[in-house]
Amino acid sequence: MDKLDLIKDLSITNNTKMVMLVLDGLGGLSLEAGGKTELETANTPNLDLLAESSVLGMTDPIMAGITPGSGPAHLALFGYDPIKYAIGRGALGAAGIGFNMQENDLAARINFATYDDNGLITDRRAGRITTDKSSQLCELLSVVKVSNVKIFVKPVKEHRAVVIFRGSGLSDKLSDSDPQRTGAQAKEVVALDECAKTTAVLVNEFIHKAQSVLADKHPANTILLRGFARKPGLPQMKDVYKLNAAAIAGYPMYKGLAQFVGMEILQTGQTIREEFETLKTNFDKFNFFFIHIKATDSFGEDGSFAKKVKVIEEVDKNLALITDLKPDVLVIAGDHSTPAFLKSHSWHPVPFLLHSKYCRLDDVKHFGETSCLKGALGRFPALDIMSLMMANSLRLTKYGA
Amino acid sequence: MDKLDLIKDLSITNNTKMVMLVLDGLGGLSLEAGGKTELETANTPNLDLLAESSVLGMTDPIMAGITPGSGPAHLALFGYDPIKYAIGRGALGAAGIGFNMQENDLAARINFATYDDNGLITDRRAGRITTDKSSQLCELLSVVKVSNVKIFVKPVKEHRAVVIFRGSGLSDKLSDSDPQRTGAQAKEVVALDECAKTTAVLVNEFIHKAQSVLADKHPANTILLRGFARKPGLPQMKDVYKLNAAAIAGYPMYKGLAQFVGMEILQTGQTIREEFETLKTNFDKFNFFFIHIKATDSFGEDGSFAKKVKVIEEVDKNLALITDLKPDVLVIAGDHSTPAFLKSHSWHPVPFLLHSKYCRLDDVKHFGETSCLKGALGRFPALDIMSLMMANSLRLTKYGA
Repeated sequence: MDKLDLIKDLSITNNTKMVMLVLDGLGGLSLEAGGKTELETANTPNLDLLAESSVLGMTDPIMAGITPGSGPAHLALFGYDPIKYAIGRGALGAAGIGFNMQENDLAARINFATYDDNGLITDRRAGRITTDKSSQLCELLSVVKVSNVKIFVKPVKEHRAVVIFRGSGLSDKLSDSDPQRTGAQAKEVVALDECAKTTAVLVNEFIHKAQSVLADKHPANTILLRGFARKPGLPQMKDVYKLNAAAIAGYPMYKGLAQFVGMEILQTGQTIREEFETLKTNFDKFNFFFIHIKATDSFGEDGSFAKKVKVIEEVDKNLALITDLKPDVLVIAGDHSTPAFLKSHSWHPVPFLLHSKYCRLDDVKHFGETSCLKGALGRFPALDIMSLMMANSLRLTKYGA
Repeated sequence: MDKLDLIKDLSITNNTKMVMLVLDGLGGLSLEAGGKTELETANTPNLDLLAESSVLGMTDPIMAGITPGSGPAHLALFGYDPIKYAIGRGALGAAGIGFNMQENDLAARINFATYDDNGLITDRRAGRITTDKSSQLCELLSVVKVSNVKIFVKPVKEHRAVVIFRGSGLSDKLSDSDPQRTGAQAKEVVALDECAKTTAVLVNEFIHKAQSVLADKHPANTILLRGFARKPGLPQMKDVYKLNAAAIAGYPMYKGLAQFVGMEILQTGQTIREEFETLKTNFDKFNFFFIHIKATDSFGEDGSFAKKVKVIEEVDKNLALITDLKPDVLVIAGDHSTPAFLKSHSWHPVPFLLHSKYCRLDDVKHFGETSCLKGALGRFPALDIMSLMMANSLRLTKYGA
């Protein structure tokens, strides 16, 4: 039995309110051996005070040694086994630009690319054309007509774009056209099962027509497609947890992920303060809130240790906006680590805090990597966060008699 | 491969003796933030002394956030994955009243209930009739005859009873007759597969005849059946662990659970001292002993913090009766937490102690929730307790060459 099935069987409703505050890429590393991480460097009197009346631990986003992308890392936070419930790259790409996929949509990632007179790919990124240029090309491709299918082509960043095919009976059992190396021809898209054959024909037709449109747009004179995916059919939070859940996020990708599990997306601003104020405004209307802070991750990826520290301090400064609402369960977590030292996501466990009336306190008085290790929750899979939150809001009945 | 299969492959016999002392609902919570739990409040010099020469940890009964009933919690203690090996509610009910189910028996839970002239259930609990009254009604129902099947109807508590059908070819693939709400008719029991059809006919016949018997017994003028279950076909401890195991328990439910995994049930008294003396008397005859102390859980469920503390102190006072026997492996564990603060079972991890010649000592010198967190075993699934005990008695050979 899948854990979600168990939770679905045991979950009940009540009037409690839960808040899951996610600082993207929260976990860090010190810049020198024996030094402090970003979180440990930050001056966080409010988080530390909260830690005193909370239970702490360290979460493994997926499993030991595995560095997750945003998709799987957030699925785990929401209680969905990220190994079982994979979101196709095309669907993730659509989510990333805020495209609201419908049931029948088929999405794929696009690279604008360069090919020569012999039909060989010479640059898989078309010289990294600007996002502006890419946007113009996407507009041109959006008017391509292929039988009864509606086509959306949307820019992502530089040479990257997303295509969404809207029609009936579209299958995502398709191979990529991207050969993944230069000096090779682009591949035909091949149906991976019988039912995908008509979709493959249609997609190849789109690619060929797109090539005509792009003929004089060197270096972006062709497109490569990969990661065909339909909208993921994820169990919905209202069914599994019986929760009326809302997401407060500034970035499209996280709104998309929240939407895939059935959260309502709330309008909010780009600052931390605005996001927390959105929580206050909507606190009566929902019983579960996911709040996503992006900047910790962005500065981690940039290698900006000091700026990541500042973002954490900004969260700390505004924390009372959340705690004053007295949610029954408050969790502060990260989806993964993004140490400025590595300039990338990493596999390191992530500091975790849970505050509720029923948590068994430990003696940890600081919210940081080294201190959270000594927390009563120990080191545990991020996949367990939702069942802990549900338990602490008394929303899970007993398993067995 | 199931873990039990692995253990079965690796287990050998020797002359060691193991004792698993289970304090039901051992784990607790403090009554106020930052205070002590029941176990931490109790004066336990002997347990603390034992902790100094033991390895400690915290067990998760099932998984994070899940609050278990007694059935699954004890299966985990005995090394049986409680998600895989579910014991049907009927069988658990029979175990709970000390009814020794035979291979062909089919058990179900009964609620005495009230229905009106339109055949609609108006009270699923027949006004919570007394256990005395229920006992009289059970006797009346025990004489109902249905074809070649022998029928036992036994009172549990108030409106709750158990029925056991003894015959050949009985199936438990049956739906419930209990509609789970008032204002509805009781349901016909329906066969969930082809082989269950004759059993369904027979059970419905029993229900109709029972209604005639109860016609003038308002408010208990009908019965609702649910949780049809045959005796669980669990692997037996003598096969998996090659152990000759005995159970010392005062309460029928735990004797029943022990019997399901093949333990012999020893006659004992109701006090802690009597249970420990039963161990002494039988110490030569078996190589594994499960001793069950119920009162910690009972007082936890009642919300009696001080009384739960007293029971723990009583265990501590009598501990020498066990330790003087010098078992090769001694475990002190709980099946789950039952904090007086919550007046119910809970999801919190449970303090755990293992003493043997081969355990790698940690520096924990007290047996309590906060201290056990710092034990060398860390936080681990209760399902791992048996393999740890087996290893510490040198009863598991090497896996692979």
